[in-house]
Amino acid sequence: MPDAQLTSALSHFSTHFNGYIDDLMACLKIPSISALPAHQSDMVNCANHLASHITAIGLKNVQLLNHNDHPSMVYADYIVDSKKPTLLFYGHYDVQPVDPLDKWESPPFEPEIRHDAIYARGASDNKGMFYAQLKALESYLKTSGTLPINVKVIIEGEEEVGSKGLVSGLTKFKDLLKHDALVVSDSPMFSESQASICTGFRGLIYLECHVNAMNHDVHSGQMGGGVPNVIHYCSQCIASMKDPKTNIILIPGFYDDVLAHPPFNATEPVALAHLSQLDDHYRLSDHANNAFFDNIWYRPTLDCNGISSGYINEGSKTVIPNTAMFKLSCRLVPNQDPKTIIQLVSGYIQDFFPSSFNVRVTSLGPLAKAAHVDEKNPYIQAAIQSLETTHKMPILCHGEGGSVPILAEFQDQFNTPLVLIGLNAPNDNIHAPNERFRVSHYKNAIETYIRYLYQIDHSQLNQ
Amino acid sequence: MPDAQLTSALSHFSTHFNGYIDDLMACLKIPSISALPAHQSDMVNCANHLASHITAIGLKNVQLLNHNDHPSMVYADYIVDSKKPTLLFYGHYDVQPVDPLDKWESPPFEPEIRHDAIYARGASDNKGMFYAQLKALESYLKTSGTLPINVKVIIEGEEEVGSKGLVSGLTKFKDLLKHDALVVSDSPMFSESQASICTGFRGLIYLECHVNAMNHDVHSGQMGGGVPNVIHYCSQCIASMKDPKTNIILIPGFYDDVLAHPPFNATEPVALAHLSQLDDHYRLSDHANNAFFDNIWYRPTLDCNGISSGYINEGSKTVIPNTAMFKLSCRLVPNQDPKTIIQLVSGYIQDFFPSSFNVRVTSLGPLAKAAHVDEKNPYIQAAIQSLETTHKMPILCHGEGGSVPILAEFQDQFNTPLVLIGLNAPNDNIHAPNERFRVSHYKNAIETYIRYLYQIDHSQLNQ
Repeated sequence: MPDAQLTSALSHFSTHFNGYIDDLMACLKIPSISALPAHQSDMVNCANHLASHITAIGLKNVQLLNHNDHPSMVYADYIVDSKKPTLLFYGHYDVQPVDPLDKWESPPFEPEIRHDAIYARGASDNKGMFYAQLKALESYLKTSGTLPINVKVIIEGEEEVGSKGLVSGLTKFKDLLKHDALVVSDSPMFSESQASICTGFRGLIYLECHVNAMNHDVHSGQMGGGVPNVIHYCSQCIASMKDPKTNIILIPGFYDDVLAHPPFNATEPVALAHLSQLDDHYRLSDHANNAFFDNIWYRPTLDCNGISSGYINEGSKTVIPNTAMFKLSCRLVPNQDPKTIIQLVSGYIQDFFPSSFNVRVTSLGPLAKAAHVDEKNPYIQAAIQSLETTHKMPILCHGEGGSVPILAEFQDQFNTPLVLIGLNAPNDNIHAPNERFRVSHYKNAIETYIRYLYQIDHSQLNQ
Repeated sequence: MPDAQLTSALSHFSTHFNGYIDDLMACLKIPSISALPAHQSDMVNCANHLASHITAIGLKNVQLLNHNDHPSMVYADYIVDSKKPTLLFYGHYDVQPVDPLDKWESPPFEPEIRHDAIYARGASDNKGMFYAQLKALESYLKTSGTLPINVKVIIEGEEEVGSKGLVSGLTKFKDLLKHDALVVSDSPMFSESQASICTGFRGLIYLECHVNAMNHDVHSGQMGGGVPNVIHYCSQCIASMKDPKTNIILIPGFYDDVLAHPPFNATEPVALAHLSQLDDHYRLSDHANNAFFDNIWYRPTLDCNGISSGYINEGSKTVIPNTAMFKLSCRLVPNQDPKTIIQLVSGYIQDFFPSSFNVRVTSLGPLAKAAHVDEKNPYIQAAIQSLETTHKMPILCHGEGGSVPILAEFQDQFNTPLVLIGLNAPNDNIHAPNERFRVSHYKNAIETYIRYLYQIDHSQLNQ
């Protein structure tokens, strides 16, 4: 595709941007809250609205994918040449509930622009962000009548409630969704002003452990010193699994499958500023060190998330409890298999306690594998190029410490590169009152995606 | 006092025992529940009833001691010769609440004899047990018109709610209550059929620890591996304070003031049977070993009584909590000072955590010192003699792992030998529905106390 088509697309986008805002606002008016059964018809309306809009944009093969009783997924594609790369654009049209309603400065489903931001539930997460993808496509289709490369679009309606329809339908729709790279419109910039791309996320396992040391609680005076105290045993077990100062995991074999990764230097000014902000906010103690970003993005963790045993209400009760419960999760890195780690950690805990104890370790799920795309991957390089041209600044490649089960499922099925371009700001109040999407971020997102389609067409991928 | 007087007292007791049961039952009808304000007038009635009864028995100087707004304490004495030893008999006339009422086979304040036991609230704890003391005195006073030695009686009305009046009044009434040995009618036999004497109890401190590692909870994905996890730090702290397998405390200096004690052999048949029963009931694991009774009676302990941090409800929450709370108590042995141990343990905990943490350790009280009387003490030897003659079996001297704050206060003020003759059975349902006192145990208790007064008069104490 010649440069003129890029120029036309950018120019059309530029002159029609106000209309692109209106189109987004029309969708933001539909209260498509997937968690609340009362909004089931709004979910249907939203899917239909999107199908019409995508048809109007000029995408082909528009359809509502249905799987069991799950909300429809909106699908469309535009195939220009089977020899060219195919991107799968992912987004979701369902939104979070809105309580507490009284904290909203304007009604959540009456989108309003103030202070150069669009305020509404879904403004960022995820309607604003996937509309940026759609509007990039529209800018080409309305000018050149075609796209530089092949594009498929899938917009699901259950991301906020676990993506069960998409996960369980991935096999069924595998041929339809076949692609070369998955372009996800659901991740934030590193900071409000730092354009960035996320090159991976960590996996997850979550265990609940119940330890029973005796048949009954006992009186700490009558029996203390002659009975096993389950809190002390559990403390010893937990203490033996990790050094809290370094967060290094001490379970033999835990790191066996961990691959080397390029270290991220926390002394880069943008990282340093962010770390210092986090430290101010959270008080991270000695943990706010040069290894901080390595530790939260590229290294696995083991963290107790909760513990409970014995008497925890006001005052004193002289009891030695017979049971304890603790919850424990691990963030995993690429090449670590969640099931293997569950077996390793469960086995370690089971073996730790005396044989007279009853120990029950349960996986609470969902399991998620980690994913990582190399910065040198051409799909990432094209994204970096597009971002640099749009934002006119060096682009930060960063990891994400959290886990994204639906993307892990895509990885499992397709094993294609993930492209997670940061679109909104970390402080855009997603899942909270006064969710917003800055107008400038919406604009930059559309421009980036327009350039991205062009970059892919002009990269080594298309030689 | 000649043997004839002992013989007369025993004979009078024997022929009047049915009356002694009736007298106890009259007192058991008064619902003197100290914890419930609705029973305040019953408390007054009970104190007055006892004062009349003690006067009728023939004790002198009967008075109701009042201190601030606390329930009256019933006092009386009978001084025969200032050169003779003076025993202070201790008991309490207040009883526990009765719920759950529907579990009682007969109404708690309508005492009833069935299966050779008196069933009522307070039958054992403590009306039945201090009536045994009163009836022993009565048996002498009604026959010889005097007692072998000096006796004082104090019966308080707040034992079940912390003995605050007696504790705070001990200085005020110190001269009145002056004595050579404290004879407490508030301890059980080692087992239903094993006559015994308790030669001491352990002290107590109780701490609550709040540990704050960060200003806020964090997301275990976004920040995990880069932040301090308070559960792991607390686990490390708790694990470092005690070896859970041996219950040996690892805080430097903890055992500095602990004195040697004569080891108690858990392989004695009666101990072995008891230990095996406990093991069956509680499942004590490897802790049910030869050192068991040493550990629960004569060694100090450190036990976490409760711990709570993070998410403990159903399901998974990917949180790294910023605070944790744990409760911790120590049982102490003679020569360990509660305040010193509080400082030692609090200081250890404070010093354990990084300086950026906020750590707050609070003593919840009540503090109690331990007490121990040597088996060779003549007051104990006289008790052993009296028990042996009454029960016609070898007497077991044992410790008590629990703490008795009021007796620790007496120790502090008077530092006199404690005589804790086991009177009721451990399975007499004190503090529970269907509390009882076996008729045979009431009888044995009275006989033992009759013989005890005689033994003291004929011991080296009275040479």
